[in-house]
Amino acid sequence: MDPQNCDLATGLVSKRYINQGSQAISGRHKLIKTLLSQRKLPDHGWDDATIEMLLQDASFMDSNNFLDNAGVGEREGRVASQLVARRHYNLAHGVGRSGNIAAEQPKAAGSSLLASITSLLVGDALQLAGLGDAGPPLIVPLATGMALTLGLLALQQTLALQHATKASPGAIPITPTYVLWSRIDQKTCLKSITAAGFLPVVIPLQRQGDQLVTDMQSLHDKLNSIGPENIAAIVSTTSCFAPRGPDDIISIAKLCQQQGIVHIINNAYGIQSRALCKLVTAAWRRGRVDLVVQSTDKNFMVPVGGAVLVGPSNKIRTRESNNNNNNNNNNIDLVGAAASLYPGRASSSAMLDVLITLLHWGRSGWLEMLESRENVYQYALESLQSFARSVGERVLDTPDNPISLGLSLYTLNTNNAPSSSPSMNGITYLGSMLFNRCISGARVVGAKSQRKQETVAGIEFPNYGAHNDEYPCDYLTIAATLGCSRNDIDLCIDKLRVCFKEYKQK
Amino acid sequence: MDPQNCDLATGLVSKRYINQGSQAISGRHKLIKTLLSQRKLPDHGWDDATIEMLLQDASFMDSNNFLDNAGVGEREGRVASQLVARRHYNLAHGVGRSGNIAAEQPKAAGSSLLASITSLLVGDALQLAGLGDAGPPLIVPLATGMALTLGLLALQQTLALQHATKASPGAIPITPTYVLWSRIDQKTCLKSITAAGFLPVVIPLQRQGDQLVTDMQSLHDKLNSIGPENIAAIVSTTSCFAPRGPDDIISIAKLCQQQGIVHIINNAYGIQSRALCKLVTAAWRRGRVDLVVQSTDKNFMVPVGGAVLVGPSNKIRTRESNNNNNNNNNNIDLVGAAASLYPGRASSSAMLDVLITLLHWGRSGWLEMLESRENVYQYALESLQSFARSVGERVLDTPDNPISLGLSLYTLNTNNAPSSSPSMNGITYLGSMLFNRCISGARVVGAKSQRKQETVAGIEFPNYGAHNDEYPCDYLTIAATLGCSRNDIDLCIDKLRVCFKEYKQK
Amino acid sequence: MDPQNCDLATGLVSKRYINQGSQAISGRHKLIKTLLSQRKLPDHGWDDATIEMLLQDASFMDSNNFLDNAGVGEREGRVASQLVARRHYNLAHGVGRSGNIAAEQPKAAGSSLLASITSLLVGDALQLAGLGDAGPPLIVPLATGMALTLGLLALQQTLALQHATKASPGAIPITPTYVLWSRIDQKTCLKSITAAGFLPVVIPLQRQGDQLVTDMQSLHDKLNSIGPENIAAIVSTTSCFAPRGPDDIISIAKLCQQQGIVHIINNAYGIQSRALCKLVTAAWRRGRVDLVVQSTDKNFMVPVGGAVLVGPSNKIRTRESNNNNNNNNNNIDLVGAAASLYPGRASSSAMLDVLITLLHWGRSGWLEMLESRENVYQYALESLQSFARSVGERVLDTPDNPISLGLSLYTLNTNNAPSSSPSMNGITYLGSMLFNRCISGARVVGAKSQRKQETVAGIEFPNYGAHNDEYPCDYLTIAATLGCSRNDIDLCIDKLRVCFKEYKQK
Amino acid sequence: MDPQNCDLATGLVSKRYINQGSQAISGRHKLIKTLLSQRKLPDHGWDDATIEMLLQDASFMDSNNFLDNAGVGEREGRVASQLVARRHYNLAHGVGRSGNIAAEQPKAAGSSLLASITSLLVGDALQLAGLGDAGPPLIVPLATGMALTLGLLALQQTLALQHATKASPGAIPITPTYVLWSRIDQKTCLKSITAAGFLPVVIPLQRQGDQLVTDMQSLHDKLNSIGPENIAAIVSTTSCFAPRGPDDIISIAKLCQQQGIVHIINNAYGIQSRALCKLVTAAWRRGRVDLVVQSTDKNFMVPVGGAVLVGPSNKIRTRESNNNNNNNNNNIDLVGAAASLYPGRASSSAMLDVLITLLHWGRSGWLEMLESRENVYQYALESLQSFARSVGERVLDTPDNPISLGLSLYTLNTNNAPSSSPSMNGITYLGSMLFNRCISGARVVGAKSQRKQETVAGIEFPNYGAHNDEYPCDYLTIAATLGCSRNDIDLCIDKLRVCFKEYKQK
Repeated sequence: MDPQNCDLATGLVSKRYINQGSQAISGRHKLIKTLLSQRKLPDHGWDDATIEMLLQDASFMDSNNFLDNAGVGEREGRVASQLVARRHYNLAHGVGRSGNIAAEQPKAAGSSLLASITSLLVGDALQLAGLGDAGPPLIVPLATGMALTLGLLALQQTLALQHATKASPGAIPITPTYVLWSRIDQKTCLKSITAAGFLPVVIPLQRQGDQLVTDMQSLHDKLNSIGPENIAAIVSTTSCFAPRGPDDIISIAKLCQQQGIVHIINNAYGIQSRALCKLVTAAWRRGRVDLVVQSTDKNFMVPVGGAVLVGPSNKIRTRESNNNNNNNNNNIDLVGAAASLYPGRASSSAMLDVLITLLHWGRSGWLEMLESRENVYQYALESLQSFARSVGERVLDTPDNPISLGLSLYTLNTNNAPSSSPSMNGITYLGSMLFNRCISGARVVGAKSQRKQETVAGIEFPNYGAHNDEYPCDYLTIAATLGCSRNDIDLCIDKLRVCFKEYKQK
Repeated sequence: MDPQNCDLATGLVSKRYINQGSQAISGRHKLIKTLLSQRKLPDHGWDDATIEMLLQDASFMDSNNFLDNAGVGEREGRVASQLVARRHYNLAHGVGRSGNIAAEQPKAAGSSLLASITSLLVGDALQLAGLGDAGPPLIVPLATGMALTLGLLALQQTLALQHATKASPGAIPITPTYVLWSRIDQKTCLKSITAAGFLPVVIPLQRQGDQLVTDMQSLHDKLNSIGPENIAAIVSTTSCFAPRGPDDIISIAKLCQQQGIVHIINNAYGIQSRALCKLVTAAWRRGRVDLVVQSTDKNFMVPVGGAVLVGPSNKIRTRESNNNNNNNNNNIDLVGAAASLYPGRASSSAMLDVLITLLHWGRSGWLEMLESRENVYQYALESLQSFARSVGERVLDTPDNPISLGLSLYTLNTNNAPSSSPSMNGITYLGSMLFNRCISGARVVGAKSQRKQETVAGIEFPNYGAHNDEYPCDYLTIAATLGCSRNDIDLCIDKLRVCFKEYKQK
Repeated sequence: MDPQNCDLATGLVSKRYINQGSQAISGRHKLIKTLLSQRKLPDHGWDDATIEMLLQDASFMDSNNFLDNAGVGEREGRVASQLVARRHYNLAHGVGRSGNIAAEQPKAAGSSLLASITSLLVGDALQLAGLGDAGPPLIVPLATGMALTLGLLALQQTLALQHATKASPGAIPITPTYVLWSRIDQKTCLKSITAAGFLPVVIPLQRQGDQLVTDMQSLHDKLNSIGPENIAAIVSTTSCFAPRGPDDIISIAKLCQQQGIVHIINNAYGIQSRALCKLVTAAWRRGRVDLVVQSTDKNFMVPVGGAVLVGPSNKIRTRESNNNNNNNNNNIDLVGAAASLYPGRASSSAMLDVLITLLHWGRSGWLEMLESRENVYQYALESLQSFARSVGERVLDTPDNPISLGLSLYTLNTNNAPSSSPSMNGITYLGSMLFNRCISGARVVGAKSQRKQETVAGIEFPNYGAHNDEYPCDYLTIAATLGCSRNDIDLCIDKLRVCFKEYKQK
Repeated sequence: MDPQNCDLATGLVSKRYINQGSQAISGRHKLIKTLLSQRKLPDHGWDDATIEMLLQDASFMDSNNFLDNAGVGEREGRVASQLVARRHYNLAHGVGRSGNIAAEQPKAAGSSLLASITSLLVGDALQLAGLGDAGPPLIVPLATGMALTLGLLALQQTLALQHATKASPGAIPITPTYVLWSRIDQKTCLKSITAAGFLPVVIPLQRQGDQLVTDMQSLHDKLNSIGPENIAAIVSTTSCFAPRGPDDIISIAKLCQQQGIVHIINNAYGIQSRALCKLVTAAWRRGRVDLVVQSTDKNFMVPVGGAVLVGPSNKIRTRESNNNNNNNNNNIDLVGAAASLYPGRASSSAMLDVLITLLHWGRSGWLEMLESRENVYQYALESLQSFARSVGERVLDTPDNPISLGLSLYTLNTNNAPSSSPSMNGITYLGSMLFNRCISGARVVGAKSQRKQETVAGIEFPNYGAHNDEYPCDYLTIAATLGCSRNDIDLCIDKLRVCFKEYKQK
């Protein structure tokens, strides 16, 4: 109902009422206008109807939805099932081109527009979350692990080009092969490194009180023993399970800058924490960070399948090269490299989920979600402390981990633990007791009583799951992540109380 | 994405691609423009996305969807459940006002617009189906029976006013009380008459060969014996189960015109038949017809719940009064009277279903549906004849019924019929055999062997279900209605063959 | 995924995980089990997925959705457009049969089941809202006005039968013709009376302080002057715009019981008020009430199009006949009479909306909605009082109206009022000022300065809109209805302040 | 509505009707039972309601949808926007685990089940399409290019492990670096090779008549000059634009087997062609094929974003090793390697689209789609030939390309061609004329008159787009792909005629 159609409608319904209706439609278009001109999250979240209007209009702009189109190419965006077409709002061409995943598609102006908007909104959301001086983000339809791989492949290719230039003509250039990686017992990150063809070198953590932290001395030593010229990157991690804390990424960033080594941060679910955003910002302001990778599902509450790649802004990158006057130490635009490395088109589904969600929240909704998470974390801490006191345990002291909390499990007898199955004996049975009571996500680690050895990507890890070869106690972790409510915490503590009692009785 | 927003979008995606997309959006708006300016069915059906765009825009024009609206009235169109809101496209205000169900609502320009368009499209669809010289139709969210009642109440009120004018002041006017009704054994129509406070007088049918037809002589006699001044209306029926044929509505229309009696036609599922549309047209061209009522579900393939009220055009009505120079013989605008009698608002749901369906079909789709039905009827006739020959039965000869067909059941022994339950013994067991084999809608009538007496609306009917007090044989009916396919007919004949065999074996 | 299919699935996914999943599905089925066995609102609202599971399963039970069904009847529930089918969850057969709108349909077990559940849930919701001793409710797909007409037609028919029995054989029975009606200036109710063929007799209100109340003396006088034997019913109203209060339905009920007169209450949006529910309950406990009619849209926040008909329980009705030993004074089961009067099938759409909404709320959600409304009313009262004081006006003292509030408009000069159009001059211009500022539903009545004479259903009303021939001041009304929020009230008061100022300046 | 609930429902609706309804529900469950037990495409496509029932039940089995679940982990599948949740049927956990993308997820039994079914159905669909002796396919949420990269990375890793075993301890193993690639002018495939860190070596095509075919001699020569030990793989292509034909993958496969070289086939849209499926089957039966990659969008008509990885069955692979007694020549399970290389979880969206589509088609629908495509190809060929004759051109003789057709463009004067923009001058202007007339996908290549040089992945291609350094004429290509209709072809030829005329006039 453009203004012309509204005029025609006045032949059917009184002009006065149509005019009001026409203004109402204009009001919706104005929301879109503001979005397109300000290129930021709308101040307040949109209702579903406005969101769907935008998506519908965009889909009309894609050639597969042109009225009277006849397709005689090999890729025409035809969709066989109406159920499938509907769930994608008739968007079928995906995003990107063979040249660049961030490039616009001639056949799909609408999809290209949505992709462009999404990128701008994610950029705004990152800034609101506390990430300062970030460059434009790249949203890829890959979960965190594969996105890290993509970033590392882009690094691989960049290094190959750099070294090819320097190598004597004809010779196959030898590129750096090793990636130093501060231990975290989660398989994905390690697999990303090997998938990209690098050899990972594990830097163990050190324990400070209850908390496990980056062993900078060990990192220095390893770096020197292998030789910086053989090291492609250092990969660090922020968001993680207690009692591990985030890596000391500021010190690592400084080290990387000094040594001219690429620094990639796995910030999987760190956007949701103001502290971690601050940490990343400080890292690239004070040292070198080439790429930060985070998942869309955990930070934006969408289904699994997307990741955000981001690096420091050009301003930051320029400053570095000025400071150092050393070409090698220049931070690499791995976001851009990843975008142009990506071969061919990609699904627009993950991007669409993020776009819908950010428009649904708007600026105020997003800030409320973040604020609420911080409050729930505080609430979870206090609730767990109170519970701990009541049962003679304590909350592990992990002041730098702003999301995950650990509860010591000294008082549960692990020898005579009830057992449901061979794989679920000992202290971990507590975990399955909780899961059967609909508490999902609580993790019991027999870090003391049930050390598991595990081989990941060809590397052997004693006491896998505990991030460290030894730890003085078993523990249980819970996390206060985006969307977690006080009610979730209350239910968890209630069931915990019941399970403690039952466990002790058995 | 109005043109201004498309301009803004060129900052994000190449102007060339945005321009193509913008033209594509304009193409959609042009479809709406054509609809609003031509006020007819679109030549070709719209795709779902364009239909939903129209509905969405209309809903934006209703005050309950105004952005930032604060409602402090008693009726603000608030919808509690998102599921409900979605299924109604956020349209909540219904249609009509306290004064008139066809009137526009100040708070709901969009709903009013859709109602207005629907009425125009239905008018066009009726004409395409073969109904000539019809006035503007009224779509009511009432199924056929209640819509007939509404029409009869409008008649009741019109008569009361007419007679009040003539009555001596102060006296309670005595209005005509009787409605003559050509028998059809379907409860709804009879109940409509009594529900509206009239006393029905049944005119039995007469048998001509196999076919049951209007007994004009009996109608004349009854009319004279009761006195035209005591007769409020004659109610006739077109679409019906074989072996009943449509009433001789042309003769009835002539009689009504001569006698100055209102004529109401129950044309429940007659729109789908070219022959019945022609018959109705001839009736009001050559005699008097005040109101014709048809269901939306059977004629437009939507869920139960709507009806179309229509009468002859003003031109036809004017002509009559000229011809007769007799005020009494003026045909009454019962469509208009029903619209303004309707107290208060009404659901827009039935109207919406019809609108969506007509836009989905377009002119070509609607014509194809009608054409296809005529073909399937022919196919059903031939298939049934072929089957009849093979089992020693015959198709009842009902040349005037263009929808329903009867098959004689002479060869099935009704005395020893298998029986599943007391209520399902005798020949009707054949019907339940078919239903259990997923043939729905085949009706077995023990018109000879199992006469049922039934009282409807206080009137006793011997041999109820057969439309006549006696009939020479049992029979089975099937109908070729809109949406019925050759495959349905084939399946039906197949199962019929199986059931005949089984029935005879038992 | 019934248990058997879950078993099969263990060949594809580990038994342990499938078992958990199977239990989760059982948990959903258990919700339905509880619903079917307890036949009350669930304690807590269901999520949309469970609601849709119930609807989907029910639709599978209707013959139009049987797999491999071949339809050869005249009404097979075929739906042409997928958009239409989806929005009705493939339910197409509507509710009711030709005999009774509450009867089950053989072809539509699922639709019948949903209708039955809806009726039970509405019954529970009415009781929770404070309506005691109610009989089973009837949900009809008619808005309030047409539902009142249906009830009055059922009365018309019941009276005709009663009088036919008593009348000398052959004579046309003369039935009571008049309906006494306590004035309320809303067209629908009055039109309902005339639509059903009754002659309305208006009983003016009397003013007590600011409030307009039932004039019982006038009612007595009129009743005696017309003669009870000529009076078909008294129609009273509860929910209404201030400064009218609810009718004194307890006194009217007592009068009806004494005089053997039918009593019908228009309780259009009264379910949402605990006080009005209490009043209705008291009325039928202490006197005679035959039928109470309320809308579904205003009380249950669904789109316009449904109504609930309810009367006192059988226990109450039995008690009455015992007390009176007077057959005439027996309260009539107008709910049952309306159900069996209804000719044919009807749309299931309105019923579906109510069902979805009640399952969405559950018992706790429904009680919260009601509680919240009471709070918002109190908040609106206080906010309006505070505003009134600040501008030298006062809130009209209408202690018995629990929903609508009136604000006096003494201080606005009505002679020199700004005027946008001839129809919008004088004080009512204030209303259009508010509407243009997105305050919908605020009503300005020039009860003193702009008396409008209007003819409704043939009756002339001086000062129409004010419920009374004269009133000492102009006023504005706002209402705190279900779903109205404090924010709505705040916005309204804010804009009111602005408009007062502007109005005075001009 | 499990049987128990149906029993309870008989208290509300007659047992007889509920029983029929209950059987109807069982009929739906039986479809699922057949699917789970036969693990093949259903004989006939399912209706949308049954598909959605399966998806809904599966989603209930995922922990994020457990009733009363409290999540305290870092990844709980929470979805913020209802729009997003609905479009994913509340499935949020994605597929795969950190260990393997094909592994089941403990928290998501339903998603795991759907993934497992999808894989089985795709396997069946491949076989029905003519791909014999295939192993189980892997569906990845990556478009073709990135899926090829994934396969090549899996190869990279496999080679690294193989060589590490053989290398002297401590030394960094040197793995084969080169990938031989038969030229096709489409960027994606080439970028896949470099993205995975390999060095591509281009093998030019040779022209046979009009058709461009694999230059086996050149391939041999290159292989020998580089040395098989330095060659990681040969990458060949089947589906492509005319006048290129599919590579001679049988000869390549034989060569690979002899030389112990990995063979990867880019079969992007080849599944839809019976001839190409036959070719792939023959290739791995008669030689060595390690991996075949195809897109889901082009072969299954879903939105861009998924790919199918498949290799020969174990039987085929075992046979080979027996035949050769040469460990090196063993074909590698790159499908399995890719699955376990994939780091972490992945989106389930692409898998879901394929599942819905295959259930929608069923076996019969899928075969009809394939059959119809073959017919449309034949129709396109004849239509184009007829057009060619009428304008003095000819259809390029490319007998081995079963999808794409080329039309010579000798008669259009390329010197004075009209020009819309600098980039659209010469013969390619014909393409933009067609696009502006809503013919999408027709490709005009100035292979003779407008040779373009382009650098892709660091390699220079003279005459890029023509697959060959020189070609004797300009041409236009059209393709008859899945879903293309005769109407599309007719429209294309019509517009072509118009454009030829206009082009010549200018």
